[in-house]
Amino acid sequence: MKSEWADSPQRIGWIGTGIMGAAMCGHLLDAGHDVTLFTRTESRAAPQLERGARWAASPRRVAESADVVFTIVGYPHDVREVVLDPDGALHGAAAGSVLVDMTTSEPSLAREIAAAAQARGVASLDAPVSGGDIGAREARLSIMVGGDAATFQRLQPLLARLGKTIVHQGPAGSGQHTKMVNQIAIASNMVGVCEALLYAQRAGLDVATVLQSIGGGAAASFSLATYAPRMLAGDYAPGFMVEHFIKDLGIALAEAQRMALALPGLALAHQLYVALTAQGHGRKGTHALLLALQQLNAAR
Amino acid sequence: MKSEWADSPQRIGWIGTGIMGAAMCGHLLDAGHDVTLFTRTESRAAPQLERGARWAASPRRVAESADVVFTIVGYPHDVREVVLDPDGALHGAAAGSVLVDMTTSEPSLAREIAAAAQARGVASLDAPVSGGDIGAREARLSIMVGGDAATFQRLQPLLARLGKTIVHQGPAGSGQHTKMVNQIAIASNMVGVCEALLYAQRAGLDVATVLQSIGGGAAASFSLATYAPRMLAGDYAPGFMVEHFIKDLGIALAEAQRMALALPGLALAHQLYVALTAQGHGRKGTHALLLALQQLNAAR
Repeated sequence: MKSEWADSPQRIGWIGTGIMGAAMCGHLLDAGHDVTLFTRTESRAAPQLERGARWAASPRRVAESADVVFTIVGYPHDVREVVLDPDGALHGAAAGSVLVDMTTSEPSLAREIAAAAQARGVASLDAPVSGGDIGAREARLSIMVGGDAATFQRLQPLLARLGKTIVHQGPAGSGQHTKMVNQIAIASNMVGVCEALLYAQRAGLDVATVLQSIGGGAAASFSLATYAPRMLAGDYAPGFMVEHFIKDLGIALAEAQRMALALPGLALAHQLYVALTAQGHGRKGTHALLLALQQLNAAR
Repeated sequence: MKSEWADSPQRIGWIGTGIMGAAMCGHLLDAGHDVTLFTRTESRAAPQLERGARWAASPRRVAESADVVFTIVGYPHDVREVVLDPDGALHGAAAGSVLVDMTTSEPSLAREIAAAAQARGVASLDAPVSGGDIGAREARLSIMVGGDAATFQRLQPLLARLGKTIVHQGPAGSGQHTKMVNQIAIASNMVGVCEALLYAQRAGLDVATVLQSIGGGAAASFSLATYAPRMLAGDYAPGFMVEHFIKDLGIALAEAQRMALALPGLALAHQLYVALTAQGHGRKGTHALLLALQQLNAAR
């Protein structure tokens, strides 16, 4: 069933123009959509405003002039503020419009938003992404979607402007849960990659030569291939920032606890990342975890 | 510098015909080499003997009629027995011959063997492998080699019959250290993969659909791609057996401690695998770790 929206420009609302949001919003402007915008700091929206987006004074005002409102902000409390607060998008959203939260946030908050929206005749999706700033710029993100199937169908043409792998994972909260699955797998793998490299260094091996032996076999992973060379070069610039990863791992731990699910590897990874911020590395990339393990094992 | 050995059949000694050793020895028989064989249980050598290998009564006797002796047995104490004991290969090895241990074993034992061999004018390599039974059958193993460079050069044509990625990692023990790096990376990644899948199951997600979203991104790994589908199917047949993996992780922990190196992720993974054997799953594949995490979180 093709939506009547599929091929026509729509009134888009966009809230949040961080590194990810700015690139993603740009794709919708490129596609000729009418975009109304709100960010906490108006000056950060200048590039979008210059390209024809209109400014609104609040998330609520954004929603009042949009058919679909995208949010991609920082923390769950930011999502709550821009969606559920009295000046939030939900309170400006007309019946029949759609809220799409692309922030990595709490599955339980996604369900809460979905219920509040449904009570007002508004549809909603949770649609967090992975793929980083490069994926956002090149519209190659993986978008993990929770919400009802009809709304997913209706939004697919728009989501296809932002990402490449767009999968409906189930009812409200399922997109966020899927993102947590992704982060849980990454967290312990990063521990393994960093411990492996530290062992190699301490054993006096040449790490680049070690990678020739192990990079193509059972130890192969995106993180090993992507980050080991950067660690070797001492390059800890963020692909994905430690502070954001800690937020995600904290959400995963809390949700797991809510399900009475103990995940010891996740808990350990989380603690090592907390230590990494204690050491002053919170704004480095996640592969800076090697530094925390080096510090743990450093002579005073 | 090409070895004078490169193109001519040689007298090969082979000790150990487990799943890996049997396949690897077969490749040297295929190549027309004269093979003398010892295994703990003679009947297990029947296939090789039928193909023309000769039986010897001890590792020492094997070495007495070989230019190069390969060992691939179970545990470090087995390596010690078949190489260093009075009836071991070293005591039958002529000056100028070579001992190659392909068991995954202790780096410190590899150095001990190298020193003992050198004292008798015998060369030695530690050359553990990864790639599993399939890699052994198809001669696609990764072979990680420690020892002096000249001996590595000399053995390369033989090793090329057994594997595809053959890399000299440094002096004696470096092959074993490299294998430990490989296992350390795998161990925590397997924790992450299993915790991620368990979270997905508990969250009510469809795991196969989740893999569509996360399998191609930052969470991608050999273990996720290879084992997640088997876990979904309830197939815990060993690719690589839990008991063997615990041996490897124990070696890695001991060597790390010897280097005064704390690796908390490795320690946790090791403990979870010990729990898995406590639960009776020691002869399943390493991806059965999911069962230990399920048991940890099971209602009584």
